[in-house]
Amino acid sequence: MEDYRQGGFTLPGEAGYEQLTLEMAKKWGADVIRDSDGTKLSPEITAAGYRIYSTICIIREHNAFAAAHPDSQQQCFLSSDPVLATQGTAEIIPLAGYFDEQFSLNDSEDALPLWQVWDRTENRLMPRDRWTYKDGKVTVRGCVPYHRYTCSFLCWRVWEEINMYNHTTNHWTSEHLRQLDPRHPLAWEYLKNWLKAWCENNPQTNVIRLTSLFYNFVWIFGSDKRRQTRFVDWASYDFTVSPAALDAFEKEYGYALTAEDFIHRGLLQATHRPPTPHKRDYMAFIQRFVAEKAKELVDIIHSFGKQAYVFYDDSWVGMEPYGPYFASIGFDGLIKCVFSGFECRLCAGAKVPVHELRFHPYLFPVGLGGLPTFSEGGHPEKDAWAYWLHVRRALARQTVDRIGLGGYLHLTIGQNAFNDAIEEMGVTFRRIKALHEKGAPRDLPVTVAVLHAWGSLRSWTLSGHFHETDGNALIHINEALSGLPVKVKFLSFEDVKNGALRDVDAVINAGRMGDAWSGGGAWASPQIVSEVTRFVYEGGAFIGVGEPSAIEEGDTRFALSHVLGVDQDAGQYACHMPWAYETEKAPFDLSEDDLSLAPGIRLTGPDTRVLLEKDGVPALTLHPFGKGRAVYMGGFRYSPLSARMLLDLLLYLTGTDGALAGRCESRLAECAWFPESKALIVMNNAENELETRVSWPDGGLTLRLKPLETRIINL
Amino acid sequence: MEDYRQGGFTLPGEAGYEQLTLEMAKKWGADVIRDSDGTKLSPEITAAGYRIYSTICIIREHNAFAAAHPDSQQQCFLSSDPVLATQGTAEIIPLAGYFDEQFSLNDSEDALPLWQVWDRTENRLMPRDRWTYKDGKVTVRGCVPYHRYTCSFLCWRVWEEINMYNHTTNHWTSEHLRQLDPRHPLAWEYLKNWLKAWCENNPQTNVIRLTSLFYNFVWIFGSDKRRQTRFVDWASYDFTVSPAALDAFEKEYGYALTAEDFIHRGLLQATHRPPTPHKRDYMAFIQRFVAEKAKELVDIIHSFGKQAYVFYDDSWVGMEPYGPYFASIGFDGLIKCVFSGFECRLCAGAKVPVHELRFHPYLFPVGLGGLPTFSEGGHPEKDAWAYWLHVRRALARQTVDRIGLGGYLHLTIGQNAFNDAIEEMGVTFRRIKALHEKGAPRDLPVTVAVLHAWGSLRSWTLSGHFHETDGNALIHINEALSGLPVKVKFLSFEDVKNGALRDVDAVINAGRMGDAWSGGGAWASPQIVSEVTRFVYEGGAFIGVGEPSAIEEGDTRFALSHVLGVDQDAGQYACHMPWAYETEKAPFDLSEDDLSLAPGIRLTGPDTRVLLEKDGVPALTLHPFGKGRAVYMGGFRYSPLSARMLLDLLLYLTGTDGALAGRCESRLAECAWFPESKALIVMNNAENELETRVSWPDGGLTLRLKPLETRIINL
Repeated sequence: MEDYRQGGFTLPGEAGYEQLTLEMAKKWGADVIRDSDGTKLSPEITAAGYRIYSTICIIREHNAFAAAHPDSQQQCFLSSDPVLATQGTAEIIPLAGYFDEQFSLNDSEDALPLWQVWDRTENRLMPRDRWTYKDGKVTVRGCVPYHRYTCSFLCWRVWEEINMYNHTTNHWTSEHLRQLDPRHPLAWEYLKNWLKAWCENNPQTNVIRLTSLFYNFVWIFGSDKRRQTRFVDWASYDFTVSPAALDAFEKEYGYALTAEDFIHRGLLQATHRPPTPHKRDYMAFIQRFVAEKAKELVDIIHSFGKQAYVFYDDSWVGMEPYGPYFASIGFDGLIKCVFSGFECRLCAGAKVPVHELRFHPYLFPVGLGGLPTFSEGGHPEKDAWAYWLHVRRALARQTVDRIGLGGYLHLTIGQNAFNDAIEEMGVTFRRIKALHEKGAPRDLPVTVAVLHAWGSLRSWTLSGHFHETDGNALIHINEALSGLPVKVKFLSFEDVKNGALRDVDAVINAGRMGDAWSGGGAWASPQIVSEVTRFVYEGGAFIGVGEPSAIEEGDTRFALSHVLGVDQDAGQYACHMPWAYETEKAPFDLSEDDLSLAPGIRLTGPDTRVLLEKDGVPALTLHPFGKGRAVYMGGFRYSPLSARMLLDLLLYLTGTDGALAGRCESRLAECAWFPESKALIVMNNAENELETRVSWPDGGLTLRLKPLETRIINL
Repeated sequence: MEDYRQGGFTLPGEAGYEQLTLEMAKKWGADVIRDSDGTKLSPEITAAGYRIYSTICIIREHNAFAAAHPDSQQQCFLSSDPVLATQGTAEIIPLAGYFDEQFSLNDSEDALPLWQVWDRTENRLMPRDRWTYKDGKVTVRGCVPYHRYTCSFLCWRVWEEINMYNHTTNHWTSEHLRQLDPRHPLAWEYLKNWLKAWCENNPQTNVIRLTSLFYNFVWIFGSDKRRQTRFVDWASYDFTVSPAALDAFEKEYGYALTAEDFIHRGLLQATHRPPTPHKRDYMAFIQRFVAEKAKELVDIIHSFGKQAYVFYDDSWVGMEPYGPYFASIGFDGLIKCVFSGFECRLCAGAKVPVHELRFHPYLFPVGLGGLPTFSEGGHPEKDAWAYWLHVRRALARQTVDRIGLGGYLHLTIGQNAFNDAIEEMGVTFRRIKALHEKGAPRDLPVTVAVLHAWGSLRSWTLSGHFHETDGNALIHINEALSGLPVKVKFLSFEDVKNGALRDVDAVINAGRMGDAWSGGGAWASPQIVSEVTRFVYEGGAFIGVGEPSAIEEGDTRFALSHVLGVDQDAGQYACHMPWAYETEKAPFDLSEDDLSLAPGIRLTGPDTRVLLEKDGVPALTLHPFGKGRAVYMGGFRYSPLSARMLLDLLLYLTGTDGALAGRCESRLAECAWFPESKALIVMNNAENELETRVSWPDGGLTLRLKPLETRIINL
């Protein structure tokens, strides 16, 4: 009988700790040993019979080339901070306030024509003859006194951002690494040759683990410690730009992008904002470029008989595993680091042969979430169990192929609780994976569509990790959905226009007015509004969270207020009195602490039922609409209890029997039923012992679970 | 020596309580006896040697005429609630959801052409040939399925709203009173003749107290008890409309108003919203009409040797004591009921010979603020003292000529505490008035401008009483200012364009985004923004409260964020990190409980000093800007302590010595210094005894005040 103690596990080896490496490989059942950013493997390790992953960040570690060809470095547009003109002339130091170790001005002949100076008070582009540039300073003439002026400019990025982060956070002192732009023809030839040479010189490597491709997510440092990070967005494309890219774009699309397409009135266009048509075009343009170049690298790797896995983070921009060009690259595997369930689903759902999770915490002194972890005061095993609870319920719905860790293996010395925890998780992972391999767990006959401006391109994630986006209700919704027995789709408004709601039972729209997650201006489209109206009226379920369907210029603030039965008063209802109501008991169990308020919510009519009120404002409402029903929540925070509430709400709205997919009576337990394996995974999400009845279509039993236990029962 | 026991006091007499009337007249020092809405005076009273006020509401009490001439009644535009079309035809019952005792459809030949049907989903006016009207029902054809349709229609108002209120609240059972439109030629002739006859028949009346003129503030009832009041706005003009008015407007202005000028996308345009240019035109048009007609009435009253006072409430719309036509009417007096200090200033500042305050509580079973007052469980003396504290500090700055009460005098029987309180207030009022008569109290050399969309037209008030508008920070600011030793102006944005800031030391802008008090779209004007910027940069003070200068479409959300040093994140700053800060001690005493938050406030630079933080959000900040300074407050609630904080803040921002106008060391005491009288009013705002040092430019003393005491000291 299989003991599930070995396989599907990638161990970070470390030269100088050869014995530890082999010991831990055995304990955790590793079949692969990898190096990490900052560690090396020694021959004792690479020759020990394990498969070997080698980490390559293709665009950095080429400082000599960068120094010889400074114009091969990457660039971006920045905006100066606004300068107040108190007279007719204003002087702007473009880089004032930016970290001068990260940026240097690109005032070259091909870049300067792309700079712009704006009167931001009037929102007016200043004619080119009204400003001059010399020695790092822009002088604007003909200013209107007491108007504010900015300069949008191109600059070189002279410190690779992940290296910059590690220097700053983990006190690295090595040489600052630069990064090359693959669009630069000489750099590209150089990189390909470098990769070929690397492959030749590293015959022991089975898998090249690319970290990741070319363009990092956007991370802009400031000069002042009180705002060290000025901007960070995991999914923005601002670091892909260059005069050459803009030139190629114009040739392909027949129109030119300008600085203002990147610097909209002084602000970068974050992923959380609905993309402009220009931005969509530019992203598609970059995606094709990245896919084409990545394929060249993968072909080289394959030509050496090695496999190419890609790490889905850092310099991942343009790769887009849920975009139309990803499959064409030909990767053999996708590796995703995970704190959360939604990240597992994100990885598991990508179209690639092997899906691998990098568990947190990394073997780093400080965790990526900012916890001390392996430093003084850290509790790596606690962190590991906390993340595991999120990951486990997602794995129960959809498995991956492999798991693993990253970082400095020597930090595990003496961390027995952590080491045992990882061992136990490894065994459980393999058992769950084996169930999936026999046949999928049973889902409820409920398809949930998450509707936002990005649609499937941003399946599961918003922009980065949970803790980076946890101010958005949608990431909490996605996290809850990642472990629920329902089918989940991510739809764009274009999909809705194309009839996608025909195949859906419930729609969720969760965001703030004007953001990409509520959808912003998309709701100004009568076609979108009437299609969602039809969907609910004919029997569909709608869940709106926060400021769903909110627009500035409607006759209501929520374009779907007639469906939701609530609207938001942002002042427009002055003197228009709200409907009075009494709160009534919900037809399902609430997780009250996880529900919060959006300001100014009021009922639009007498039929809206208030199921929870906080501070005198409806926090949860239910509205019958035609044959369908709509629920409004002011806010939603993920917890095991709120995930259960979301499930019960979906069951209620769609009239579905939860036991069809297996159901625990206790709200703190979850289960997955695998009909082909005749097996049940029952998970205790509580830190206490728990007794629960579990029911599935042809049976039921009562069992007592240990704290956090994963019980796999063969029926 | 004057004992201040008599004069300047208007007593509500009551037939059947003649002895009580004369007793109370003596106790309270009345020189005038009046009747009230619901009471009569008997000959024993009118012949007792007092001046007599008689109350007339000119447009009601004419039910016979209204029945004979139903088209002489007043009208308004309403919008139906939206109707969802689920197929190609929709049926709208226009008045569904409205109180059918207040409204009846005006489907007459001159009204029906003014009706409109809208596709509100598309914001499209439906062509006239797409809908028909019959028997109280509108049928719309050619609808787009799942769009929403509304009908804007004219209706008759068949129940005078104050009468309707008294029936509803005070359980009146008499015949419902109707109201006539003075624009109707027959009605106007009738009303003038009626007034002449009344004057002839009431020779004992010295003063006709008009309650008030023609058009009530807007008060729209619904059919459902859960929303009995659908809309109420003390300063809106919607009840002045009629086909005749629209016709006259078009002749005068050369363009036609439509239903949509009144029913903007289904909502009435409340005073809290910035007026459209059409609305400004229409208001000026109505103001001229009201002034012209009112003058005719005043001339009739004067022709009988009587005086005409007007009560500034109820049917006051169009009269506008701060508008350009008020003085032309020729009123002899203005009477304002007061809960608050700002209402005293509102009355005191109007250009009219006599200013009279009607104190609260009225002698009614239920107070206008909703308190039981003279019913079971009421404490009329407590209410009176509470209102007095507000009124007193305003009177100390600017007096009126008279005070008085209204209502049913018999309710005072057995209310000794109340009766004594009114007696004491009467004496204090007369003493304060006497000081003012010798010469004004000394103000600080500080002129504060409150800047909003209405400017001086809405001096002091927003729209109605404090408790009706207390969700707006500005009414709290106005209330605080009403008792501070500073000059106060109310400026519009047009005034700012015309250079009004040259004569101002501090500007206050307090409102929410898009409302009339912040100014809404006015801040999209570069001219306004740069003028206020100049003002502060050159040394002015700016105080922004809530969402000051907020606009939808700027490069910042607060158009003055560069001045304030803060901006508001409504999502647009996604991924743009805020400045970190440490909270520092304010250079003046705070009233922390009266400061609140606006969501998403963040610093725009390192120079902004945070003086108070709540829930992790800056609640009070200070920003040096050029030679000036700006303060931001998330919210402001009036209390004696917060009024003192506002004063101290103004002193700090303008570098002024508070003792110049007299100053109490205790923050719960206030004073006014009258140089000509060589006198000081010192007021204890606390319910406890209090010791305080008081300083003025040529002296100082320490004194101990009784709870709530008003001490008048001759120096």
